[in-house]
Order: sequence, then C-alpha cells, then structure tokens
Amino acid sequence: MRVLIIGGNGTIGKKVSAYFNKGHEVLIAGRNSGNLLVDIKSSESIKQMFEEVGKVDAILCIAGEAKWDTFKNLQEEDYYIGFESKLMGQVNIVRIGQSYLNSNGSITLTTGILADDPVEKTASAAMVNGAIHSFVKAASLELIGRLRLNVVSAGLVEDAVDKYRDYFPGHNPVSMNKVVNGYVRSVMGKDHGQIIRIYE
Amino acid sequence: MRVLIIGGNGTIGKKVSAYFNKGHEVLIAGRNSGNLLVDIKSSESIKQMFEEVGKVDAILCIAGEAKWDTFKNLQEEDYYIGFESKLMGQVNIVRIGQSYLNSNGSITLTTGILADDPVEKTASAAMVNGAIHSFVKAASLELIGRLRLNVVSAGLVEDAVDKYRDYFPGHNPVSMNKVVNGYVRSVMGKDHGQIIRIYE
Repeated sequence: MRVLIIGGNGTIGKKVSAYFNKGHEVLIAGRNSGNLLVDIKSSESIKQMFEEVGKVDAILCIAGEAKWDTFKNLQEEDYYIGFESKLMGQVNIVRIGQSYLNSNGSITLTTGILADDPVEKTASAAMVNGAIHSFVKAASLELIGRLRLNVVSAGLVEDAVDKYRDYFPGHNPVSMNKVVNGYVRSVMGKDHGQIIRIYE
Repeated sequence: MRVLIIGGNGTIGKKVSAYFNKGHEVLIAGRNSGNLLVDIKSSESIKQMFEEVGKVDAILCIAGEAKWDTFKNLQEEDYYIGFESKLMGQVNIVRIGQSYLNSNGSITLTTGILADDPVEKTASAAMVNGAIHSFVKAASLELIGRLRLNVVSAGLVEDAVDKYRDYFPGHNPVSMNKVVNGYVRSVMGKDHGQIIRIYE
C-alpha cells in the first residue's frame, strides 16, 4: 500500500509511520519536515501536496491545532484557529484527498478524548474534536462505496504525558501500541464512518 | 423570572415562548421580529441586544443556521456559514450573555439529533451540532457555581415535519410538548453541562 501520513513526524504520527513503514510505502507530510511540506490551514497547500503525491491507498491526518485557554480568556478569533486548522484542515483533506485515493482507499482523521470528556481550557479544542466526530458520521453516509472514512480519538497518549499531565488529572495514559492500532484498524479493516475511541 | 428567548418566534421558539409566558416575563429576540432584533452572526449585535435587555434569569438560544447540501457540493466557505451563525453565534451568546445573568441564572443552547444521528446533506450541519455538544461539556467545567449551561438536542420536531420529512426518512416526529420540556428542564431544573436529548 501507498500510505500518506500528514503529521507523520508528530508524537503519534511517528509511531504510526514506523508501523506502516514495515511493508508499505509511507509518505510523510508535515508543516516543517517530511517528504512533503503542507500547511493544512490552506486548502491550496493541501491541493499542492496531493498533486505532488499522486494516488495513494490510505490518507492519515494526525495534524492540526486549536487554541487552549480558559473560557474566560478565549476570544472570538481564538476559536477560528481551531476552525481553520484542525477542523477545516481535516475536512479539506477529505474534500480534496478523495480524488487522490485508489479504489478501496481510506481516510483516517484524528481527534481526541476531549470531544467526549473535556478538561479545563478546552472549550475550543473540545469543540473542534466534537465537530469532527459528527462530520465523519455525516460525510461517511455519502461516501459509502467510494472510500472509507474514520476518525481515531485517543486519550492522553503515553508519549505526551510529560507535556499534558497537568491538563489531564487522573487520566490513565494510553499505550502507543493501542493508539497505533486504532489507525491500523481504520486503514486495514473494513470500518467506515466510525469514531475509533482508544481511551484506556 | 425574566427570560430572554433568542429565536423565540421560530418553530420551536414560539412553543417555548408560549410556555414561559405563563408566569414569567418573556423577551423575544429575533433576526426579523420580536421585542429586540439581533443577528447572532455578529458579536456586536449580540452585545447591543444584551445592553438593551439588561439582566435576565435565563437566556435561551433557539436560533442559528448552517448550510445543508451534499458533501460533494459543500464548498469550504459553506462550512463557515455554520461556524459564524449557529456555532459562534451560540458561543458568543454564552461569552457575552454570562455578564447579563442574575445569580442562579442559566443559558440554554439548541442543537439537534444530527450531531449523533446525521442524515444526508448534513456534513456541515451535523458538525456544528456536534461542536456545540462538546463545547457545552467543556465550557460548563469552568462555569460551575457561576451559571448553568445546557443544550437541548431535539429530533425531527412535530411542527417541522412538513418541511423536513424528506430529509429524515423513518424518523419519528417528536411532540412539541416533549421538546418544550427539554427547555423547561434546563431552565427550571438543576442540570449543568448536559446535552438534553429529546429524540423520541
């Protein structure tokens, strides 16, 4: 398989890339590094990336940001950071990427436990994750038979515990193997329109 | 109680307004009609509305739009209709409205079954509803003790069946009494951070 991993050098992405590198052709796209540079905030940049890449069998997006801050501090424009990056970035990867998929191809997006179980300072970040969950359910209804679309929603991942521990009091870290398996299930299995929750 | 109902002349809003009119002071805000005019796409317009209204005990928003179309037809800018209206409109009502609430006040937002159970042509509309569900869960964590925040998510409501029947094959219409009760529960009860689902 030819596998494009956007954000393939990130905390989760590098573990997912390492998995698929065994036996598959992996192309890594990233904002600052990778085989291809892409800024997912820009649909033009996404188009250019796909033009360079050509046809693939699986597209994984493990990228995108949203502003973390207290509800009190979050200003109207802060919410648009998440809309433009993690939310519309991933929507545009589906919109544009579908034309670059071989038959029986799949697209896998990424959210996180905040959609279901938010913590402080995530009014914007949780919202973006919840938006993608409902988007995947809705868009997948119209993509049946053309491609498979799923999203992996992980809890506090093992490799990010040092950075995020204080934001997630009492959350049990999720092993990277389990997280990687979420992506494997989406790419190699038959799921479609699923929110693949990896919370423990 | 002094109750502000944004969208109080709409299909659901007028039934909710009729309920609270018995025994409470109801102020209706709407885009085209009501005691006050407001365009929830504009945070300035929301601020002006609250300045005119002054302090209230309950704020209900039963307003906001998103673009309905096939995933194939939806363009990037179409998604922003929902972000600016139903999504950020409601977020801004919480952001701004919290300063105009008396103590023990509540804010009640509105979504719909699409967040959980989307139908065709709702990639954008479902997304906006799902976004608000996660937003309410997240923001409510930081509003405990200051105000109560909930969202009512109704199925295909009885009074909208003629307009929406073809979009919701096999959905059982939800009686207006049950839908009104969702708002009553949010305003008069003690719920906080809840998605009040009224699906059957």
